[in-house]
Amino acid sequence: MSRRLSTQDADFDIRFAELLGAKREVSEDVDQVVREILDNVRIHGDGALVEYTKKFDRLEASSVDDLVVTDREMDAALEKVPLDTLNALKLAADRIRAHHQKQLPKNDRYKDHLGVELGSRWTAIEAAGLYVPGGLASYPSSVLMNAIPAVVAGVERIAMVVPSPGGILNPQVLAAAHIAGVSEIYRIGGAQAVAALAYGTQSIEPVSKIVGPGNAYVAAAKRRVFGTVGIDMIAGPSEVLIIADGHSNPDWVAADLLAQAEHDPSAQSILITNDEPLADAVAQAVERQLTTLPRQDVARASWQDFGAIICVKTLEEAMPLANRIAAEHLELAVADPEKLLEKVRNAGAVFLGHHTPEAIGDYVGGSNHVLPTARSAKFSSGLSVLDFIKRTSILKCTPDSLRALGPAAITLGEAEGLTAHARSVAIRLNL
Amino acid sequence: MSRRLSTQDADFDIRFAELLGAKREVSEDVDQVVREILDNVRIHGDGALVEYTKKFDRLEASSVDDLVVTDREMDAALEKVPLDTLNALKLAADRIRAHHQKQLPKNDRYKDHLGVELGSRWTAIEAAGLYVPGGLASYPSSVLMNAIPAVVAGVERIAMVVPSPGGILNPQVLAAAHIAGVSEIYRIGGAQAVAALAYGTQSIEPVSKIVGPGNAYVAAAKRRVFGTVGIDMIAGPSEVLIIADGHSNPDWVAADLLAQAEHDPSAQSILITNDEPLADAVAQAVERQLTTLPRQDVARASWQDFGAIICVKTLEEAMPLANRIAAEHLELAVADPEKLLEKVRNAGAVFLGHHTPEAIGDYVGGSNHVLPTARSAKFSSGLSVLDFIKRTSILKCTPDSLRALGPAAITLGEAEGLTAHARSVAIRLNL
Repeated sequence: MSRRLSTQDADFDIRFAELLGAKREVSEDVDQVVREILDNVRIHGDGALVEYTKKFDRLEASSVDDLVVTDREMDAALEKVPLDTLNALKLAADRIRAHHQKQLPKNDRYKDHLGVELGSRWTAIEAAGLYVPGGLASYPSSVLMNAIPAVVAGVERIAMVVPSPGGILNPQVLAAAHIAGVSEIYRIGGAQAVAALAYGTQSIEPVSKIVGPGNAYVAAAKRRVFGTVGIDMIAGPSEVLIIADGHSNPDWVAADLLAQAEHDPSAQSILITNDEPLADAVAQAVERQLTTLPRQDVARASWQDFGAIICVKTLEEAMPLANRIAAEHLELAVADPEKLLEKVRNAGAVFLGHHTPEAIGDYVGGSNHVLPTARSAKFSSGLSVLDFIKRTSILKCTPDSLRALGPAAITLGEAEGLTAHARSVAIRLNL
Repeated sequence: MSRRLSTQDADFDIRFAELLGAKREVSEDVDQVVREILDNVRIHGDGALVEYTKKFDRLEASSVDDLVVTDREMDAALEKVPLDTLNALKLAADRIRAHHQKQLPKNDRYKDHLGVELGSRWTAIEAAGLYVPGGLASYPSSVLMNAIPAVVAGVERIAMVVPSPGGILNPQVLAAAHIAGVSEIYRIGGAQAVAALAYGTQSIEPVSKIVGPGNAYVAAAKRRVFGTVGIDMIAGPSEVLIIADGHSNPDWVAADLLAQAEHDPSAQSILITNDEPLADAVAQAVERQLTTLPRQDVARASWQDFGAIICVKTLEEAMPLANRIAAEHLELAVADPEKLLEKVRNAGAVFLGHHTPEAIGDYVGGSNHVLPTARSAKFSSGLSVLDFIKRTSILKCTPDSLRALGPAAITLGEAEGLTAHARSVAIRLNL
């Protein structure tokens, strides 16, 4: 059983704050180790990469060349993936590509009433690095979601790194990289792979931005190289918040709660409903469905430790709570989801109505499944084409418009004690 | 004298790489101290803030209430600022506001051929924190540039922190905060102020994102709280790259190089030209202008240590170099700047033609002067309204469109071993 809250309870505020504050991740202090790894790869390059890969991944290589995934290995991987999986990956890729193409912003250029021209010009990042975890959390869908926005943005080079413990790679992950349009793949991982992408080595050209999920070492490494390269969000465990009313099917709601819970014992699934009988029915359906789930242990741990059912008087009362939870995934499984949508302030992605299980968004909806976790939807967005482009601003004065604006600039330069700033304007105006 | 390079030199590649790689900032290792300060403020709140402010800013206060800038203090500050400065700040604010209003993206919603609805919905961050340095680097223009995009984005609450060593605050900075629309101002600074904004204290509500420049302690603190809140770029010393041809006025070019150099001994001013006589004339003009500059020592140190004049055969040859430099500010002071603009891949802001000194962009152009430094224009953009809004993605299936897409989602869920994902779709399709 998970916890049960009601806004009618006297201690609701305290218990809701506890739920929000629950520390779901143990933050390992790996910073010192990571620092040493980064320094070693920066100084020794390829040699350090080969050493670390031998040590951490039990993979022997005489050079970084040996760690490159070859065309032959790619062909072999593609043959190993069942045809229906390949087709599903291609359908997903097509839909992700189509949706992300709509995210490309337009350049802008205009002249204001003084004759000053202002503009914004968007260009793609030249090279991006994509971190893909090894082992169990190595998901082909995640490769599509990270790589395709970069391709759509116009990034010319996408270098993927993926650890292959004992030499084993997931063929589905390679297939997804192929379908997405990844340019280079290296069998390296951990902080050493992040260092190679950020600093470059003899064999690996540096990139300008690194994206993709990873363990505590990868997260610490990304935090440290931030500034040298761009990074995406540091992803935390996955979350779903479902707002349901009396029209919801309890079995469907339970299935969606468990789809999130099965990810990770630290995942969080929360239901908010204005219908007590639904709350009871969902709680029972969760227990029933859990018993037949292959990942029952994981899902049960998540549901028991971090799951919650919250009863509210009205659906309107649910919305401020939802905005405080700022969930990665928010399902509005109610009769009139559009009305509630207008009150959503903080959420990574919203799934409307009874027929949009969150799992559609994970795979084939077309929107991105890399979304802000751990309340960070309060200040950040899911991965998009915007993460792989940057804006250069443009300014152009004529002699006349400089004459109109110049005196104010001179005043501010002098006021800030920056005389050379003021002079660079004055000298053009013979002031 | 600064260094002089030519693409005709045999050792050009090495010397250009040296110029790019020059370490202009000593990175102080303040991480341990900062960690302790963050922990103390998180645990002890107001009490720790008062203690640190006494210790680091020599400012006694009995409570955080005493550190709030009152309406009366604001009125007194406004009276101290000369009228022409106030008017120049208002002109700047109006222009920044007008330009940034054009950056607001539109929400999007559409139905694809399967009947799946997809969309993006933009909402403002609820509360932003603005760090303003104390002392010399406390610039009113910087307050406008950081606060106005947040106001335009729709951020309801902007909390500004500014250290007041010995109790002294720059009245211009307060005036700029007033003009920009800052909601709250606290006389606190350093890592402790960043902690207060990120975690909140008894008296200060937490914010969702922290922006603004600061010293090594502030930068380290922002890096550490990243994730709990959003942060902007970690700003490095300022830079200008000027590309000039034989039509350029050497005095104007020299003035623009020095406007950048006067910021900081670590600032960097680079000229690239295809005209050797111009190179000579600029070098002489810089020496001449330096002698009459109040901040001569700063500007001379910057120009000697990090300045450079690079001669190229043709302007086309300049562009790949410019893209490797990825300057914060790029002036195209040539006869046909539009032609070169098309080849700009990496730059924070571009200033076109002979009549657009970079200082116009610092103050009254309307575009933002918070721009990516230290090559980070390769992967990031200047501050904009986009930094204060976030996108929620929207997905809505009908029973029919779920029937069309569902099987592929089920296939991928099964392929990834995420059975509950697959089931959440299958259960709705009676599969």
